Amino acid sequence: MGAVSGIRLLPIRGLPEVRPGDDLAALLTAAAADEGIALSGGVLVVAQKIVSKAEGRLVALADIEPSDEARRIAAEGEKDPRHMEIVLRETVRIVRQSERVLICETRHGFVCANAGVDLSNAPGEDVAVLLPEDPDASARRLRDALREGDAPLGVIVSDTFGRPWREGLVDVALGSAGFAPMADQRGSRDRTGRELLVTTMATADQLAAAAGLLMEKAAGVPAVFVEGVALEGDGALRDLLRDPATDLFR
Amino acid sequence: MGAVSGIRLLPIRGLPEVRPGDDLAALLTAAAADEGIALSGGVLVVAQKIVSKAEGRLVALADIEPSDEARRIAAEGEKDPRHMEIVLRETVRIVRQSERVLICETRHGFVCANAGVDLSNAPGEDVAVLLPEDPDASARRLRDALREGDAPLGVIVSDTFGRPWREGLVDVALGSAGFAPMADQRGSRDRTGRELLVTTMATADQLAAAAGLLMEKAAGVPAVFVEGVALEGDGALRDLLRDPATDLFR
Repeated sequence: MGAVSGIRLLPIRGLPEVRPGDDLAALLTAAAADEGIALSGGVLVVAQKIVSKAEGRLVALADIEPSDEARRIAAEGEKDPRHMEIVLRETVRIVRQSERVLICETRHGFVCANAGVDLSNAPGEDVAVLLPEDPDASARRLRDALREGDAPLGVIVSDTFGRPWREGLVDVALGSAGFAPMADQRGSRDRTGRELLVTTMATADQLAAAAGLLMEKAAGVPAVFVEGVALEGDGALRDLLRDPATDLFR
Repeated sequence: MGAVSGIRLLPIRGLPEVRPGDDLAALLTAAAADEGIALSGGVLVVAQKIVSKAEGRLVALADIEPSDEARRIAAEGEKDPRHMEIVLRETVRIVRQSERVLICETRHGFVCANAGVDLSNAPGEDVAVLLPEDPDASARRLRDALREGDAPLGVIVSDTFGRPWREGLVDVALGSAGFAPMADQRGSRDRTGRELLVTTMATADQLAAAAGLLMEKAAGVPAVFVEGVALEGDGALRDLLRDPATDLFR
């Protein structure tokens, strides 16, 4: 993904509280138009939270009967056993567990705290927001609905994850459509002519992190449009997830 | 770090090949001026490679006598034993080892492949480029040299790291000066009034990743100026490195 002459990150504000069944593409188009932004020729990064809400990925804690394992994990970490029960249902494997945090591998293959099941910014105190069922499909649907004709447009569904070795959260891509999420530079040459054997950049994650600068949770910026990136290829974010068989940290 | 109305990422091109002893601040200022960019009121992200070169962090492989351990590791992975010797000298602990890759904890506390010792883009085929001795100090020196009077200016020294669970590389911050590398949102409230207990964003890494979009290795963009971020506080990047005692992945 080459750039022409700089990149602009444009915040999209003013969305109403998103509810299940809402036409998120229509809400985003209207909010962007209010800011004078045409969603074309760039990448729209959309926070997972509003995608999940529009898709109805909400679970009322009152409806949840926690299992013994959920009660045990909750007791160790002073957490809500109903929250932990939902986390376990979204989890295929617990990667690490401490009093402080539960690092899960989700059904999608993401490795993150609490399987991405979040209580913050939910429509009510007692509702959990789950990750989309298939974030690549969510991104693809949004792209198809937002795109005008054959205009180039990329879409990323992003979320905020922790990582090993470093404090602080960064935004990463959960799903993508309309561009290649990895920019493979294998075989290209650096300025001295040396072949770069394994320089494959995670472009989708760099875009998500860039958008994250404008998406601080309390700021009411659930989407960011990135202008000035050359959209090349296409592909699903799931192809960026490492094969567990070659992963040294599971 | 809040944004006013969008963020601009401006590539700084046209730097000559950087050599030991070069005045990097002067080279950056001149290259930025050629692009019409005043390095003030934003964050300058500078690729580690040119910082290391200016600081003379270069080792000729011909001068290296590999140890038995370096020879053993090199033989397992079809690598140059002299390269592996330099890697081991920069390493305090090998975190993971496979035929494919050596994940090291560096003397600084970074966890990355080959302790950040790189053969690509070196001035010659037989030279290794090491990470700066103290990347926070490098960033601080650059900032002091670049800053005009009391103008706000942040500097990041960035590098390209892999990560667990996901393929592809992302740019992260090795050193920073002139702003708080973490934006601590603990205690702030989301839109529904729920207190966000542990939302601490790794702003410096998000900035490095954003700049990375313009820094593809072969493109000759070793620095990117980020405009439109509100510079708040100050601090060293090393404070963002997780305490090994609370890290679940070492």
